[in-house]
Amino acid sequence: MNLLEMCDTDAAFVRVETTVEQAIRTMLDRHVGAVAVIDEDRRVAGVFTERDVLRRLSLSRRDPGATPVREVMTTPVEMATRATTPSEALATMVERHYRHLPIVDDDGRLLGMLSIRNVLEARIDTLTRQLDEARSLPH
Amino acid sequence: MNLLEMCDTDAAFVRVETTVEQAIRTMLDRHVGAVAVIDEDRRVAGVFTERDVLRRLSLSRRDPGATPVREVMTTPVEMATRATTPSEALATMVERHYRHLPIVDDDGRLLGMLSIRNVLEARIDTLTRQLDEARSLPH
Repeated sequence: MNLLEMCDTDAAFVRVETTVEQAIRTMLDRHVGAVAVIDEDRRVAGVFTERDVLRRLSLSRRDPGATPVREVMTTPVEMATRATTPSEALATMVERHYRHLPIVDDDGRLLGMLSIRNVLEARIDTLTRQLDEARSLPH
Repeated sequence: MNLLEMCDTDAAFVRVETTVEQAIRTMLDRHVGAVAVIDEDRRVAGVFTERDVLRRLSLSRRDPGATPVREVMTTPVEMATRATTPSEALATMVERHYRHLPIVDDDGRLLGMLSIRNVLEARIDTLTRQLDEARSLPH
């Protein structure tokens, strides 16, 4: 299974000039913990996550209705492409303490948002299938 | 493997009267997405998570330095005990959309904090071991 098959290809996103308030409303409406932040060319410029809200907004005096998301998003952001393997994506997320990784095309445009949970669940599916196969072999 | 073996038994916690600001600082210091909230008898009264910050604090006009965590924590909270199986815990978390589940003793006192990631990673370890065993059987 490749990354695009295991991730959310209808990934939530906002534009760089969107307010933090609107970005948070998007996360709440979509029940996700992260949104991709895209520039005017639809390239991924950053990621805005629950962790960013905790770290950069919740204890600041910033007004979420007047702060553009570009000022508090995580950037530069690690990204995956169609060529990235699930193991590589997982290693990046574990090493960098990211729960999400945008998947982009060759022009840096958003194809989907991968979560660490997507990768772990896909790994469980694969192992379960392999175990069923191994056990069904004649001994 | 039981739940206590797979979870963080040095779970982060704060008291119900703690301010939201201090609870957030605890989450940031401990690099966790949730803290257990305990009452004066050290019983778990609720859980305070990144999601609660997003949903109940970030767009409110509340002052995190003047708001007790009990006012914005998630409660009543689902909990696991030593008798809960990993499958039961996972089912509860998936069904309720919780990423964390406190594990408590018979008096409701905190023994550890289980994350959905803990359960998925333990499942991968178990399946990997079972697959190695199945493949090493003589055919």
